[in-house]
Amino acid sequence: MAATQQAKTRVFSDVDFERKGKQATVLRVPQSRNDSGWGVVQIPITVIKNGKGKTVLLTGGVHGDEYESQIAIAELARNLDPADVQGRLIIIPALHFPAAMNGTRLSPIDNKDLNRCFPGRPEGTFADVLAHYVSAVLLPLTDVNIDLHSGGRAMDFVPSTTAHVLDDKAKMAESTAIARAFGAPYHVVIKEVDAGYTFMTTCERNGVTAISSELGGANRVSIPGLKATRRGIMNSLKHLDLLKGKLDTDGPKTRIVTVPDYGCYAFAPVAGLFEAYHPLGARVRKGDAAGALHFIDDPRRKPEIIAYGYSGEVWCTRGQGPVVAGDPVAVLVADQR
Amino acid sequence: MAATQQAKTRVFSDVDFERKGKQATVLRVPQSRNDSGWGVVQIPITVIKNGKGKTVLLTGGVHGDEYESQIAIAELARNLDPADVQGRLIIIPALHFPAAMNGTRLSPIDNKDLNRCFPGRPEGTFADVLAHYVSAVLLPLTDVNIDLHSGGRAMDFVPSTTAHVLDDKAKMAESTAIARAFGAPYHVVIKEVDAGYTFMTTCERNGVTAISSELGGANRVSIPGLKATRRGIMNSLKHLDLLKGKLDTDGPKTRIVTVPDYGCYAFAPVAGLFEAYHPLGARVRKGDAAGALHFIDDPRRKPEIIAYGYSGEVWCTRGQGPVVAGDPVAVLVADQR
Amino acid sequence: MAATQQAKTRVFSDVDFERKGKQATVLRVPQSRNDSGWGVVQIPITVIKNGKGKTVLLTGGVHGDEYESQIAIAELARNLDPADVQGRLIIIPALHFPAAMNGTRLSPIDNKDLNRCFPGRPEGTFADVLAHYVSAVLLPLTDVNIDLHSGGRAMDFVPSTTAHVLDDKAKMAESTAIARAFGAPYHVVIKEVDAGYTFMTTCERNGVTAISSELGGANRVSIPGLKATRRGIMNSLKHLDLLKGKLDTDGPKTRIVTVPDYGCYAFAPVAGLFEAYHPLGARVRKGDAAGALHFIDDPRRKPEIIAYGYSGEVWCTRGQGPVVAGDPVAVLVADQR
Amino acid sequence: MAATQQAKTRVFSDVDFERKGKQATVLRVPQSRNDSGWGVVQIPITVIKNGKGKTVLLTGGVHGDEYESQIAIAELARNLDPADVQGRLIIIPALHFPAAMNGTRLSPIDNKDLNRCFPGRPEGTFADVLAHYVSAVLLPLTDVNIDLHSGGRAMDFVPSTTAHVLDDKAKMAESTAIARAFGAPYHVVIKEVDAGYTFMTTCERNGVTAISSELGGANRVSIPGLKATRRGIMNSLKHLDLLKGKLDTDGPKTRIVTVPDYGCYAFAPVAGLFEAYHPLGARVRKGDAAGALHFIDDPRRKPEIIAYGYSGEVWCTRGQGPVVAGDPVAVLVADQR
Amino acid sequence: MAATQQAKTRVFSDVDFERKGKQATVLRVPQSRNDSGWGVVQIPITVIKNGKGKTVLLTGGVHGDEYESQIAIAELARNLDPADVQGRLIIIPALHFPAAMNGTRLSPIDNKDLNRCFPGRPEGTFADVLAHYVSAVLLPLTDVNIDLHSGGRAMDFVPSTTAHVLDDKAKMAESTAIARAFGAPYHVVIKEVDAGYTFMTTCERNGVTAISSELGGANRVSIPGLKATRRGIMNSLKHLDLLKGKLDTDGPKTRIVTVPDYGCYAFAPVAGLFEAYHPLGARVRKGDAAGALHFIDDPRRKPEIIAYGYSGEVWCTRGQGPVVAGDPVAVLVADQR
Amino acid sequence: MAATQQAKTRVFSDVDFERKGKQATVLRVPQSRNDSGWGVVQIPITVIKNGKGKTVLLTGGVHGDEYESQIAIAELARNLDPADVQGRLIIIPALHFPAAMNGTRLSPIDNKDLNRCFPGRPEGTFADVLAHYVSAVLLPLTDVNIDLHSGGRAMDFVPSTTAHVLDDKAKMAESTAIARAFGAPYHVVIKEVDAGYTFMTTCERNGVTAISSELGGANRVSIPGLKATRRGIMNSLKHLDLLKGKLDTDGPKTRIVTVPDYGCYAFAPVAGLFEAYHPLGARVRKGDAAGALHFIDDPRRKPEIIAYGYSGEVWCTRGQGPVVAGDPVAVLVADQR
Repeated sequence: MAATQQAKTRVFSDVDFERKGKQATVLRVPQSRNDSGWGVVQIPITVIKNGKGKTVLLTGGVHGDEYESQIAIAELARNLDPADVQGRLIIIPALHFPAAMNGTRLSPIDNKDLNRCFPGRPEGTFADVLAHYVSAVLLPLTDVNIDLHSGGRAMDFVPSTTAHVLDDKAKMAESTAIARAFGAPYHVVIKEVDAGYTFMTTCERNGVTAISSELGGANRVSIPGLKATRRGIMNSLKHLDLLKGKLDTDGPKTRIVTVPDYGCYAFAPVAGLFEAYHPLGARVRKGDAAGALHFIDDPRRKPEIIAYGYSGEVWCTRGQGPVVAGDPVAVLVADQR
Repeated sequence: MAATQQAKTRVFSDVDFERKGKQATVLRVPQSRNDSGWGVVQIPITVIKNGKGKTVLLTGGVHGDEYESQIAIAELARNLDPADVQGRLIIIPALHFPAAMNGTRLSPIDNKDLNRCFPGRPEGTFADVLAHYVSAVLLPLTDVNIDLHSGGRAMDFVPSTTAHVLDDKAKMAESTAIARAFGAPYHVVIKEVDAGYTFMTTCERNGVTAISSELGGANRVSIPGLKATRRGIMNSLKHLDLLKGKLDTDGPKTRIVTVPDYGCYAFAPVAGLFEAYHPLGARVRKGDAAGALHFIDDPRRKPEIIAYGYSGEVWCTRGQGPVVAGDPVAVLVADQR
Repeated sequence: MAATQQAKTRVFSDVDFERKGKQATVLRVPQSRNDSGWGVVQIPITVIKNGKGKTVLLTGGVHGDEYESQIAIAELARNLDPADVQGRLIIIPALHFPAAMNGTRLSPIDNKDLNRCFPGRPEGTFADVLAHYVSAVLLPLTDVNIDLHSGGRAMDFVPSTTAHVLDDKAKMAESTAIARAFGAPYHVVIKEVDAGYTFMTTCERNGVTAISSELGGANRVSIPGLKATRRGIMNSLKHLDLLKGKLDTDGPKTRIVTVPDYGCYAFAPVAGLFEAYHPLGARVRKGDAAGALHFIDDPRRKPEIIAYGYSGEVWCTRGQGPVVAGDPVAVLVADQR
Repeated sequence: MAATQQAKTRVFSDVDFERKGKQATVLRVPQSRNDSGWGVVQIPITVIKNGKGKTVLLTGGVHGDEYESQIAIAELARNLDPADVQGRLIIIPALHFPAAMNGTRLSPIDNKDLNRCFPGRPEGTFADVLAHYVSAVLLPLTDVNIDLHSGGRAMDFVPSTTAHVLDDKAKMAESTAIARAFGAPYHVVIKEVDAGYTFMTTCERNGVTAISSELGGANRVSIPGLKATRRGIMNSLKHLDLLKGKLDTDGPKTRIVTVPDYGCYAFAPVAGLFEAYHPLGARVRKGDAAGALHFIDDPRRKPEIIAYGYSGEVWCTRGQGPVVAGDPVAVLVADQR
Repeated sequence: MAATQQAKTRVFSDVDFERKGKQATVLRVPQSRNDSGWGVVQIPITVIKNGKGKTVLLTGGVHGDEYESQIAIAELARNLDPADVQGRLIIIPALHFPAAMNGTRLSPIDNKDLNRCFPGRPEGTFADVLAHYVSAVLLPLTDVNIDLHSGGRAMDFVPSTTAHVLDDKAKMAESTAIARAFGAPYHVVIKEVDAGYTFMTTCERNGVTAISSELGGANRVSIPGLKATRRGIMNSLKHLDLLKGKLDTDGPKTRIVTVPDYGCYAFAPVAGLFEAYHPLGARVRKGDAAGALHFIDDPRRKPEIIAYGYSGEVWCTRGQGPVVAGDPVAVLVADQR
Repeated sequence: MAATQQAKTRVFSDVDFERKGKQATVLRVPQSRNDSGWGVVQIPITVIKNGKGKTVLLTGGVHGDEYESQIAIAELARNLDPADVQGRLIIIPALHFPAAMNGTRLSPIDNKDLNRCFPGRPEGTFADVLAHYVSAVLLPLTDVNIDLHSGGRAMDFVPSTTAHVLDDKAKMAESTAIARAFGAPYHVVIKEVDAGYTFMTTCERNGVTAISSELGGANRVSIPGLKATRRGIMNSLKHLDLLKGKLDTDGPKTRIVTVPDYGCYAFAPVAGLFEAYHPLGARVRKGDAAGALHFIDDPRRKPEIIAYGYSGEVWCTRGQGPVVAGDPVAVLVADQR
């Protein structure tokens, strides 16, 4: 079977997705370098198969500077006993591995955002080849994809799960149910805007149930975010019957919220240093000042005040001081109606 | 007078430090570029002189990614009415201006940390020339230097003022009194380790009273940090009689603390992804785990636990996820005995 | 309508091409950055619609170091009163905006020449996405494209308009008529060599009348070039009935010239420092020395003399001193026969 | 004819592949640069045609740091008298010319490995455009491609010719016969793994007989490797009847060997400094230590010993000290059974 | 003698400054590189000695993008017959050789402006070591230094010679006499501002008569600038009795002008695209608009008009379109009073 | 004592040079980074002290791409039992640690060659600070410095020890005696040319006996070079009575040779691809061709033949194919007379 898979990809591996038990190995993505023509990038992968059940693809590190998922998923890969599993878990703690090793959203190899390269191309650059492997080899094996994100350098978030608004209400109910089990404060359902180069959209086009998250940010390892991630992963796998046991329901009850219109996004009109006026989760009203843009190069210039275009709660704010023109500096959510 | 100053520096300016009123102008630091041989770096400076009183040099942005001071000091420069001042205020919101424009600790011009270049050299690179101007021209005019810092990308701090332990107890009492007026939760008095290339040490060698701070970090504009900075500056200037009015004492009472020994520093022994176990300000005991170092490149490898070497309170923790060998990941303070 | 457009592109905007009056806004091209995953590049666009008439797409800055068009087109966007317009003007002063901000032909984002990326691809890199937007959204709205160029760093030109030799004589007559109105000293009609990745070729394949220019060069803002640009734009719009008023015919009478064969190009056979022997516009004969290639690394080596392969007038010469092997150093034009 | 060729490529040249005699000229690959929009990369090509016979495409420098082929093929191009040739020789000493000028495997223009870009795309980056020219213009003219490689920085090899295991036994016999004439110590027949982006695979898909080589390495000009290359080229051309004369059979008798399974490759599991235990050509057994991986960053850490997974002879070992995870450090060959 | 010289410098050479006749050789400046620990930078030098007379040090290429001097001085080195010389000529066509090979003002080795590194330091980086050699070895041999400059990328100049205003009137008369012989349209006498890191100041401190120039600019090889350079060098050497023959007095009579005060410099207050309003040499009055600064990033923003602060003639204007804050955009001269 | 040392350096460490037994720790060199202001570079150091005897400072990795010494010295540090030592061993396997981690001669921090930075400066960049620590803290403790080198990328050597020709014959006899014990094929005694910025010269100025080596090269781990290194270190320490036991005298008898004059160096006059004609150790005569310089960019250009300027044996040849003007390509040695 592995041989068949590899016929359709440039990525090779000694993993056997049909073998029972636990395999901890690597995907080998060819990457010719100046000092190693037959060089590869080795991406750790753990596959655990036992009994009967769904196949869950659990991925972190699609963006290299989102750390909570990388830590919690690597822990799971290390600690899980195959005897405790019913079904198949394909675990990749740091999918865009060179980006993760670099601690940046994009990888230094081709400067691409893996989550804008789906469904991928085998003749493209590194991120394209990798996305193609996921689409061509992994997704056909997968029932549910849990792909965990955080805010990276760009943003800091109220810990949340996220999913797309889908026409297929049954599919959407599945992701909502996983989100309720996961147990983050918010589950944010979003209308997809940038059409179709993301991992989640590719999952949906392949009939794979997909859920994602935003669990911290600001290029840090968030203490509460990591706690929510660890609990959320275990709860989700229990909900999907891959693991046994009761859900940990110590956390907040998950609220289903949405980003109703474009006015929920506050943008920086020009470059500057952004001072947010509200902490995450604050309730704000349309027209309120979201924050100030300061211009350090000219102390005589007054700061520019940026207003909210909607009434709701602050889902995320800018994770680093400096912004450039067009950067989002805050996004609001509101209860779904 | 300006002419005399310029004889001892390569930096030139139309500022006249003896003129009454408010001047908002620039320092011009020569920097020959490939596309502009007579190019300069223009650093905004505001000088306000009125009545009689001390000369305070108020600086921010010695490190470009420490934002609270840049914002609050630029506001002061913009808004202050000379009629309200008694004495002279030399205000430079972003001293290492190219670093501030780049949003990084070091400037992209010569990759140097300005705060390791004092007292400077006129024949050196950009940071050396700039440090030399401060030492040779500004410090001889100055009674008190308030040079405000935050944690930058590296660290996140409990908002604090800082000063050196000095043999001259009278001098030290002056900085402690300013710190009490400033009103941050901690005032941290530190024994200087790296001998002598910092701004503060150069102030002390020139008989200038010096106080500094750590007011946020993690490459963000901290909401409470900025509030503390704004209040602290006004309180300090009132304390020094440059401004009139009552101190704002709404904040916490400042505790004088210290970093008693080397055991207060927790270091990363190898590179990894650091998960802190405690929030800022937590009380911890020697031997407690400070956090875990995770190794995403090898999910089979157990995290390395880093222990505290002292009992105290968490003053700062690592401001970004990834660390390299030798990086501090947390520093403790303890009450002064 | 805007919604429909955006379905076929990754670029979004609040511009409404059907709305009457003047809209000054931006195109937002998604560009995920390490510090802003939802980052965009904002490209200023002004749309003016009034009465009835043609739609003219007026673009500058396809190459970032060609300045005359950027200045003159931005002026037009700022100053034009919609009441004076009959038809629709889509004005983009700096189409390859990141290149323009960088002052370079190629943009620093993906190092591509936008004018080699047409008709574009939505899944490509920045320049591909941008070219695709122009081809898929703007060209279907457009009757005439006036895309103004200069020589950039590479070349310095006698101010000229340019157009392709087309099989469709009617189409070609349209561009020639615009050129006569524009009023540059030369109108150069060229046989397209590099097949099909340019903006002009894409216009032609979409039935859009296209005219371009070379209006200065050498990485400078040319005083006569900018004068010719300002007058040429106004004259062209009057000719196309978008603006009212008499043409400014103060300038030279436009001569229609051509680049008859490959011998019109003088190339550097090896790298060196090029000294041109003739000023722009000089009449020269086949076999005359065009200039000398000097070898500063070896003062004992004689300069290499480069000869003209045609008799004609000097249209352009190298805009910067150093050349590499294969660079054109001069191009001749001759009267059309 | 040239015109027809150029219709299907972006590369242009004044070469006429049908002209009798010797032409030494260049391929001109358009490459718009910031300082030369009409810039090209000029790749030297020599075409020699005389009498009747096969067309051989002789290429070196597909990787820029493989020098023996570049030197020997340039000599041949310089020295060969057309009168001595029967047939047509298309000679390109340094196909990936910018990589060769940089002395690196990949070119600095787009950081691509030309031998992973076949069959190429005219709308891609430099390496894609160049590969497309070879596939679209040169291969249709070619009977036999001799494309000579060495180990580059990555590896050091026993001088060898190489060819693919093909289903078409007649084709395979042709390449084996050329290899026997070439006369390197080994002729290594390999099962192609990475499916289809190489020059050799593209030759085979176009019905062109293809042979390659590994003739030295370690980023050096090998004295014995260059001797083998010079003799091998002359012998091959004599065998193919393009040149007259007796083969030079002074060298070793060529052994036909193969890389039987994946165990022939020894890989570095992690990054380190590799010490090989055996010289090239040594006979080793499965389980023997191939070498040690040293960790200079931690002198307390024991080296990691890497074992051979097969019994055979050492074909190549790592050509430079440092390796990263996944790099091959040695490859074995065994006699074909 | 050479041995003695080399004892005081890190630069070595086989040149013998006392030998009669013509030596064309190189200075070897040690520069350890990653791929050549014993690497050097070889700087061509020609020494011609014959009969009795002054020692003239003739240098070009102190800034790598100033081409007229490099071409004309290399020609002189190549063509001069020692029998025609009386005295000693030390000729270095491209003193900052790595900058000249790079076509940039600064060299890519250490990013320094050689003309800000005098008198140099043997333990510094490349430019410091080179400046030190000039100061320690060449200047003690030298009576007159003619160091020719142009405007580089930054500026475009009316062809001019330049010299410092000196207290020593006799010395100053010498440079003025050379300037009159040289025969450029202007001879500009300047008060030195940036105290003491330039080549000219170092000459003066060593009692060497020094003259310099500005002979073109805008990163081009100027046709009239090169003509003035060629004539000026020959005239100067004749004036100094190193060459025989009548001065070529075809050119304009040289006017002695000066830059009377700081108001002669027009600066860009912020970054933008500079449009000059006047050609070189134009007579302008204080308060006239010098040009406009355009803001392409915001077409709604009006250009900023920059005014002259003096009445005089336009000596130079900005040589490239984009400027940053603090860049000079035009400089005026006025007749000396 | 450690405290006193550290007062004169910016480097700190917990090592106690007076403590008995074995300490494996790090030197901490402050290096402020953009993401870690209090960052350091940790350089592994092992100190072993027992009984009475000399202090030997044993260093490798002064150049990061010289691997044999790094491996053998790290082994010694790991394996040596303090009970077997008489005296004190200060062992630093990779002194220029960031260069060693980068596998390059220079470090990526400041691009300096550590062996051109002695005796160092505490206010300089990284390499200066490190060299200063060695000079100010380690050398005062040291009797003998054994600093082992190889050829790096630049050169490939016959395994050799090296020392300077000294006026102090007794000192020179000491290094010769160590060399005879070390037992490399050659011991090369060299007259120092570049005066005084090397480690060895600084040792000599401090009265420290110094010996060095060239033990391989070409950026590889040499099998025979590493064998010679391992044996040479043990033999040297036995000779110096730090270790007990008989010398291993299996190797060749060491010949004392010298580089008698400048003609022993063969240089590349221009850039090209160097083909050496002789293997290491070959006997050659003045005027013989040392090799050919090939010009791949112009196959019509004949190679340039480089001749030897002396009769002797080939000590080293170029370790990589490409060379630039002025690079040495071979060096000869001859028996001392």
